[in-house]
Amino acid sequence: MKFCSDCGTPVDLRIPAGDSLPRHVCPACGSIHYQNPKLVVGALAEWEGRVLLCRRAIEPRHGYWTLPAGFMENQESTADAAARETLEEACARIEVGEMFTLYDIPHISQVHIVYRARLLDLDFRPGEESLEVGLFDEADIPWEQLAFRSIEFTLRRYYEDRRQGSYRFHTGRISPPLGL
Amino acid sequence: MKFCSDCGTPVDLRIPAGDSLPRHVCPACGSIHYQNPKLVVGALAEWEGRVLLCRRAIEPRHGYWTLPAGFMENQESTADAAARETLEEACARIEVGEMFTLYDIPHISQVHIVYRARLLDLDFRPGEESLEVGLFDEADIPWEQLAFRSIEFTLRRYYEDRRQGSYRFHTGRISPPLGL
Repeated sequence: MKFCSDCGTPVDLRIPAGDSLPRHVCPACGSIHYQNPKLVVGALAEWEGRVLLCRRAIEPRHGYWTLPAGFMENQESTADAAARETLEEACARIEVGEMFTLYDIPHISQVHIVYRARLLDLDFRPGEESLEVGLFDEADIPWEQLAFRSIEFTLRRYYEDRRQGSYRFHTGRISPPLGL
Repeated sequence: MKFCSDCGTPVDLRIPAGDSLPRHVCPACGSIHYQNPKLVVGALAEWEGRVLLCRRAIEPRHGYWTLPAGFMENQESTADAAARETLEEACARIEVGEMFTLYDIPHISQVHIVYRARLLDLDFRPGEESLEVGLFDEADIPWEQLAFRSIEFTLRRYYEDRRQGSYRFHTGRISPPLGL
């Protein structure tokens, strides 16, 4: 951020009175512009034991596979976001179930949430952000071609819980990959 | 948002190509400025069966009681945020436990998360944003003087679970109060 989004004046980076972190502060109108983590929400949608995956048509991770997921919008709930992203990326309608995983990824200031969901019909196809969309058995999951670790970890917890016969809510923290 | 925070030009409100919602778009540099929900994270910290509450010294809800909680910062995890807010508002050190509640509040574009936690010692006092801080037995919780519904609902789930003998993760959606 270089300019005040309220009045267009160049902003300063300084610690406001009573605060403890540097913020973008406008010297003209006094606005303090906070920057906060973003929520990414998706769905693990099942159809007769298979899971809906999308192959990404956009960066980052173009060509890699993911659960349908994306940035949560204002004025929606996390469950709304899971259903909307599934509709946008896979043109698929789901019934959203329980929240299944929540991963903190502090080095990129994101929190990723995935819901379990039930695919309502087989009328799906790639949305604008997907190259292809498909239903996968566990043996066919492209583990080496998954786009994001939060997606890999969610799928691993899903198959572990499925083998145990009950699903529970999982949380975790994802650190930068080695070498970064 | 009225001005581009990257170049200071007045922004337009329009739907970018490939998008479905109006965004603030800069006609000069092309930046698209997304606005997303914010996470508010707090802690329900226990000491010998009592719960740590803070009376707010700031708006909104000045003078009302809350669990220590606040906006999550970039580069931290949700658990980090719970511990930091407890330190800032109650000058109290905690050991953060399991995530306990997550409430969607779409009409204000917020998601509220509360962790269970263990207060590490009795060396607490009001931080700058609190008028007073105290430990409360269930019978003494100021139910009519709580600042936010996510806090009330979290405390109710806590005492229900405690009576049942086990704590589980709870989610919910909070709608506007009647009359709004």
